[in-house]
Amino acid sequence: MDAQSAPAGRVKPVGRGAKVCAAVLAATLDELAEVGYANLTVEAVAQRAGVHKTTVYRRWKDRETLVVDALTEHVAADLPIPDTGDVASDLRELARLLVTHLTVTHLGVAATMFSDAGRLPEIADVRRRFFADRFRRAAPLVTRAVERGQLPEGTDPALLLKSLIAPIYLRLLVTCEPLDDATADHAAAITLAAARAGVFRAHDAHGQSETH
Amino acid sequence: MDAQSAPAGRVKPVGRGAKVCAAVLAATLDELAEVGYANLTVEAVAQRAGVHKTTVYRRWKDRETLVVDALTEHVAADLPIPDTGDVASDLRELARLLVTHLTVTHLGVAATMFSDAGRLPEIADVRRRFFADRFRRAAPLVTRAVERGQLPEGTDPALLLKSLIAPIYLRLLVTCEPLDDATADHAAAITLAAARAGVFRAHDAHGQSETH
Repeated sequence: MDAQSAPAGRVKPVGRGAKVCAAVLAATLDELAEVGYANLTVEAVAQRAGVHKTTVYRRWKDRETLVVDALTEHVAADLPIPDTGDVASDLRELARLLVTHLTVTHLGVAATMFSDAGRLPEIADVRRRFFADRFRRAAPLVTRAVERGQLPEGTDPALLLKSLIAPIYLRLLVTCEPLDDATADHAAAITLAAARAGVFRAHDAHGQSETH
Repeated sequence: MDAQSAPAGRVKPVGRGAKVCAAVLAATLDELAEVGYANLTVEAVAQRAGVHKTTVYRRWKDRETLVVDALTEHVAADLPIPDTGDVASDLRELARLLVTHLTVTHLGVAATMFSDAGRLPEIADVRRRFFADRFRRAAPLVTRAVERGQLPEGTDPALLLKSLIAPIYLRLLVTCEPLDDATADHAAAITLAAARAGVFRAHDAHGQSETH
């Protein structure tokens, strides 16, 4: 996704307008984190951003478009891709960054992306673009490991990366267990063992290599 | 969890009352599957069950307790645990049963358990009991494999089973990709490779062996 492109049908803000816009989007993320999508109101967002409700409605026709814009901004924020020279450290580091991202930085936002709000077609689309973008950015971690001979030829980056994040999201969204560095290291160990055994080679994947 | 025990504070139904109760709980699951928790109304549940709204309110004080009871009933429904004599087939079969369970049988119910409704403490509790129960029931699949020498001594059943289900829930809840037998087989292959490499031995797990 191009972080520079404004959503269709809305004018890209500049100057004072841009500051108001940024404040409203940040307030929306904060509200999402605090009360969740179901309880989010435009009034509370406006109050938090220090603007009048009508200022919000002038730019966003409803709560849904506001939330979609806020999540799109969030998606544009990047995570660094580790490059330590060793695939085991790289995977542990990447998994630890995800854990930190989900727990410290954006817990409520993550909860929103995977809550009832995820049923909105626009938010499901934000989510798909998010992961396609993440996997594309992180792919060099895998291809470099293959080039160094640390992983089998033909290892599919997206398959491997999904395996890496799966145990982390399981604890966050399904079993409701805490996330910590041990969670990340365990996820990295599972994925590395499977990768070395050739489980993520594209031709072994039986059509699982599409990103969505 | 004991499927025989009635929720505290409610009388266990018998006779005609039991039939009405079962019809209402089934209607609640169907409504959850169709419209989701956010849009579920007691009125629609009553209509679907063929009873008057007041009949529902006589047994359940509100929408929340009704949903909790319906999900608890759902949890009591069991999945068979494969026992083919080979751990690879057992894991594939168990993963395929989960895929079928999530996609064909109870897609909407799964969506509810992991949606905004999951923020209700009662539903989060139902979820924790569900997984503790599932892992306990499926543990013999792992211990039998260890006894047969197909997996390393000390393999932790809950750790292994979480790894097995993680890629399936990732596709269901996070990346929004379709679930099929290939999804299940891929999850089984990842888990088997990691298990053989000793990743799920309890002493290697750095405190990840608690169930919640």
